[in-house]
Amino acid sequence: MRIAILAHEKFPHRAKTALGILRYSDDDIVAVLDRDNAGARVSDFVSDVQDAPIGSQMAAIDEPVDALVIGISPIGGAFEESWRDDVRTALERGCDVISGLHYFLADDEEFAALATENDCELRDVRKPPADLTVSEGTAADVDADVILTVGTDCSVGKMTVSMELARAAREAGHDAAVIPTGQTGIMIEGWGNPVDRVVSDFTAGAVEEMIVEKGDEHDYLFVEGQGSIVHPAYSAVTCGILHGAMADRLVLCHDAGREAIHGYESFSLPPISTYVDLYEGLATPVQEASVAAGALNTAGIDDEAVARRELEAYEAELGAPASDVIRFGSDPILEAIL
Amino acid sequence: MRIAILAHEKFPHRAKTALGILRYSDDDIVAVLDRDNAGARVSDFVSDVQDAPIGSQMAAIDEPVDALVIGISPIGGAFEESWRDDVRTALERGCDVISGLHYFLADDEEFAALATENDCELRDVRKPPADLTVSEGTAADVDADVILTVGTDCSVGKMTVSMELARAAREAGHDAAVIPTGQTGIMIEGWGNPVDRVVSDFTAGAVEEMIVEKGDEHDYLFVEGQGSIVHPAYSAVTCGILHGAMADRLVLCHDAGREAIHGYESFSLPPISTYVDLYEGLATPVQEASVAAGALNTAGIDDEAVARRELEAYEAELGAPASDVIRFGSDPILEAIL
Repeated sequence: MRIAILAHEKFPHRAKTALGILRYSDDDIVAVLDRDNAGARVSDFVSDVQDAPIGSQMAAIDEPVDALVIGISPIGGAFEESWRDDVRTALERGCDVISGLHYFLADDEEFAALATENDCELRDVRKPPADLTVSEGTAADVDADVILTVGTDCSVGKMTVSMELARAAREAGHDAAVIPTGQTGIMIEGWGNPVDRVVSDFTAGAVEEMIVEKGDEHDYLFVEGQGSIVHPAYSAVTCGILHGAMADRLVLCHDAGREAIHGYESFSLPPISTYVDLYEGLATPVQEASVAAGALNTAGIDDEAVARRELEAYEAELGAPASDVIRFGSDPILEAIL
Repeated sequence: MRIAILAHEKFPHRAKTALGILRYSDDDIVAVLDRDNAGARVSDFVSDVQDAPIGSQMAAIDEPVDALVIGISPIGGAFEESWRDDVRTALERGCDVISGLHYFLADDEEFAALATENDCELRDVRKPPADLTVSEGTAADVDADVILTVGTDCSVGKMTVSMELARAAREAGHDAAVIPTGQTGIMIEGWGNPVDRVVSDFTAGAVEEMIVEKGDEHDYLFVEGQGSIVHPAYSAVTCGILHGAMADRLVLCHDAGREAIHGYESFSLPPISTYVDLYEGLATPVQEASVAAGALNTAGIDDEAVARRELEAYEAELGAPASDVIRFGSDPILEAIL
């Protein structure tokens, strides 16, 4: 597929979905749309992802495009009216439009009419399928080994770690797949259940359904975790994924230097050993699982020697091997979990 | 209100909503519908609740009825087609129908048409309000002491214990209220958020919103817990309630003799001490809370001396005072938590 990614005024640092797609998608990225950076290229900002020109608007892209992806998500997940021209133009050109916003494009009268008229699809990936239900406790029955990324907080790199580990496992000759649970993962993989948007009673079931579907087709499944088990707002989703996935092994993801819950600064992060005890203790009555490795995000540390020391300290706290999958590669983690 | 309660093939032991209403509602129960027990009376099975005749179907009730309540909830919350005649008859007679099923009666074309035609209401108490959102981590700021019932499994008596403790606290002169989180509690109290039915990201927020609303009006809030922190399907809801409620004290509810998760028999219950460690360990990073008392459901044990021995064993495992609130009263628990 040839795709364009909308990221107006947010590329690259506040466009986590756009960056995730550039980093991991097999699709051909024709252009990124960011009116603030039109004329530049992706590689002017980020070096280790697919390169693409940055354009000002959909109407300025001459090449054929199969789909326009909304690659940013404002707080609240609303649709910004300044994007309407781009979405309209895409639909008029016969492109599908893929969105992870809380605002469903398919419910927008103008877009729905244009999509019908031009025979193209509006894919709202955050709209959960209607046929989800409660977990049956059967995810452990699949042939694949299931590895779940868990975190000390939101936005510590669980999606990135899941993608990198699956890619590294495939490069090492294993048959590995990602089980996507959030909007970016779903856009990259082209399928998946948005577990943070399902009915709370179906949280575990939404994960189980995916694992049961894919679990006999692969040797390893890397389940994208969400939130943190001690998050004041999002722990329910974390807990449901933990029990729905019935993982064999856990990878604890942490952001170096993070001391409090992001956006909930009065809540300090407990010690790493507390996370290990909680995740393992909570998993065990449903399916025994150990924290077999860790992933430390050191992107905020410029000095590589300092990053290395932080990583060693993290490994000591964790009592397991760890790496920064972007900076130091996935091998130490893969050795511990495969 | 004069109400009939549908509980086909499940009364009394698998009809917890029906029993809760019979025990705690101020309404006049005209009949229970259970085709397996038609001709008997509620008092033939349960002695300490409102009595009523048991009928085979809605059409066989001669007395006037204001509302038919669906008093049972199959796993998954589906509507059983064998109940359709009763609901149809109720609507044709002008009765409201109150349901806590996941399947919304208002979305059923036949029922919606009949309700309009006969000017009666279809009340789906499990349909969450549209304005819920994520938790802000503020429930601990209210004046009231917050006491949360947590459980070793579903259907061990959390709702009953919450109701009994609030009632006993009021009788002892305290200003106490229940925070209802499930269909039965909501039906009895006449308000509340159906926490198992909200968007998963809003689970904690749905509890917090109720506590913030009521927390400065009372001295004690008894929050109705749901599920169990080690339940393969429902732990997400349990975890969200634990962190959303930010309780001061926990009461661990258990059903004497229960050895495996109900409906998930391959999952054994861990030791009581494991539950204490998990609930306290998980609560602490958000809001420190201890399991200050226990509630043991001994309804399945006929011999009172045996029940007493089971209770003593439970207290020893728990390391805290416990009672069967129905059989032995609420005082030992109240002394530990108020």
